[in-house]
Amino acid sequence: MPGEGGVIAHIDLGLDEKAHPGINGPMLFRPETAKPLNQLAETLLRAPHPTLTPGERELIAAYVSGLNDCTFCCSSHSAFAAAQLPAGMHLVDQVRADVGTAPVSVKLRALLRIAAAVQRSGREVTTELVDAARAEGATDLEIHDTVLIAAAFCMFNRYVDGLGTWAPQDPEAYARAAEHIVANGYGAS
Amino acid sequence: MPGEGGVIAHIDLGLDEKAHPGINGPMLFRPETAKPLNQLAETLLRAPHPTLTPGERELIAAYVSGLNDCTFCCSSHSAFAAAQLPAGMHLVDQVRADVGTAPVSVKLRALLRIAAAVQRSGREVTTELVDAARAEGATDLEIHDTVLIAAAFCMFNRYVDGLGTWAPQDPEAYARAAEHIVANGYGAS
Repeated sequence: MPGEGGVIAHIDLGLDEKAHPGINGPMLFRPETAKPLNQLAETLLRAPHPTLTPGERELIAAYVSGLNDCTFCCSSHSAFAAAQLPAGMHLVDQVRADVGTAPVSVKLRALLRIAAAVQRSGREVTTELVDAARAEGATDLEIHDTVLIAAAFCMFNRYVDGLGTWAPQDPEAYARAAEHIVANGYGAS
Repeated sequence: MPGEGGVIAHIDLGLDEKAHPGINGPMLFRPETAKPLNQLAETLLRAPHPTLTPGERELIAAYVSGLNDCTFCCSSHSAFAAAQLPAGMHLVDQVRADVGTAPVSVKLRALLRIAAAVQRSGREVTTELVDAARAEGATDLEIHDTVLIAAAFCMFNRYVDGLGTWAPQDPEAYARAAEHIVANGYGAS
């Protein structure tokens, strides 16, 4: 019942929300939609990619989730990025604080600027932003995937917050989730 | 090559964009992500549902796409809704013009208000909006699916416009697409 366990989401997910925080509750509530959602995340963030590492793709997801003020997704994908980037959480924090000065490649910085535009609106992605990324060596596939990762997190963030789900405060919870994702991927979620 | 045929998207999709307008170009460019995207659309908009008809679900998609100013998605899903609603395009136009006065059920009006909140941000979905829908008989599944349809179109709209794809002006193009979707669904796209 809603409210049991001290957590009240907008709908009765039929489970202990503290045991299944954030997107996990709605995904258990509606497995029919969880399947393509997990497949999309797996393909975008973890499947083999010719140039973008899982850490770089998770960084884009964390950055957009931060811009959308989605605590659960931002904490989750920041932890997933940190676990897969040599510079760890310090780099994630620097990117989230200021993309302009964070020590990422000029190409990744240009892709993050495209992601920030997508977060506002698809119509905010200008030829100038795309040309700037291309000038730093970004490929069509990198631009495509950056746009779709950013767009997808505008969905995931709204799904998680639009249903009023609960987000853990403890960073350890997200670090444990990162271990699970790095080991098993999204398909096994 | 980009630009051939008089259409220039942000990336070279490797095809005649006028023959594959809107989301169709990016989906052919990246079939790995097209598969879960089509499965998500099929599940949300067309799969059997205990209470919401395909026409009602397409109406939510069209309404959100209009709020996001996405010409291709709004024209497409307006046509798909119109083809499956007894009151046709006139009702779609009324909903897009003013949800408050459009002749829909009080329950569907309350769900559309939740969808409009999701379009702005997941955090805009208040307990009041959810309680108002529930007071009109909305189920947990209806509220869940409304939130996820609205969130998903915040992704699809950004995907289509963030890549600068081409949208036909001719309503006939969207009416033909509607015939295809109603007959074959999204899986066969």
